[in-house]
Amino acid sequence: MADEIERKFLVSSDAWRNGPPGVRICQGYLCRDKERTVRVRLAGEKAFLTIKGATSGISRKEFEYAIPPEEAQALLDLCLPLPVDKIRHERKHGGHLWEVDEFLGPNAGLIVAEIELSDANESFERPDWLGREVSDEPRYFNANLAEHPWTEWKT
Amino acid sequence: MADEIERKFLVSSDAWRNGPPGVRICQGYLCRDKERTVRVRLAGEKAFLTIKGATSGISRKEFEYAIPPEEAQALLDLCLPLPVDKIRHERKHGGHLWEVDEFLGPNAGLIVAEIELSDANESFERPDWLGREVSDEPRYFNANLAEHPWTEWKT
Repeated sequence: MADEIERKFLVSSDAWRNGPPGVRICQGYLCRDKERTVRVRLAGEKAFLTIKGATSGISRKEFEYAIPPEEAQALLDLCLPLPVDKIRHERKHGGHLWEVDEFLGPNAGLIVAEIELSDANESFERPDWLGREVSDEPRYFNANLAEHPWTEWKT
Repeated sequence: MADEIERKFLVSSDAWRNGPPGVRICQGYLCRDKERTVRVRLAGEKAFLTIKGATSGISRKEFEYAIPPEEAQALLDLCLPLPVDKIRHERKHGGHLWEVDEFLGPNAGLIVAEIELSDANESFERPDWLGREVSDEPRYFNANLAEHPWTEWKT
């Protein structure tokens, strides 16, 4: 169990693409209430079950358990409709790890960069390609992108 | 992952009480849709996260993962209101294991005996204390007993 403290940004250019290839992630939700989400994630050859609590500011409780990858597809089949499909690219910058998620399917075109911090006030260097912060916009939560994909947003 | 095939009965007497002491179980639900449940169970000193699919007859898909018991209470705190509290007594009879659940709290007074079978047509010996079968009554599902406790039933 950990407190997940995360800041989330759009990207302002394709410069982040310089780097190693990403990993395909397919994730579904057994539950996506505001107060709790239960996520099934198949990331390359690894699989995880992740429970997160309600978001408070940029922080929320997170419990993550590795599960046998051969069970992930059957669990994804049990999930609510509309999984989230993306490629995750890892980029190191200024001592921090950025995860750049390039969404696919109904969210294709959306690219979001995330950084995990050890406390909410931790400072970090912004890569040149970093765009607008969206940490406090719930519509960018993956659980919400599943139900209300980016390509269907009106604004 | 396994198919859980289970038959469930009321008890007709207290004769099942002859036997070793039971284990206290406290369980909550992160999700209790008809199509899927996600259960957090603290059973004595062990803890589990269990995902079950929709019930089809007396069978449903089940995925169970052991989790660190020290994380169970924080996960229970994330669950939907109204956990289920019970003492589970194990009784061997005729080569099968019966789990006799003596409910506590808002379900106090309810006692249910369950047997897991390897296929739906497997035969088994009925202990003398076995009462009416309730396998096909969804109100006896633990997830439903959480929300609609037995002491509040009208019939």
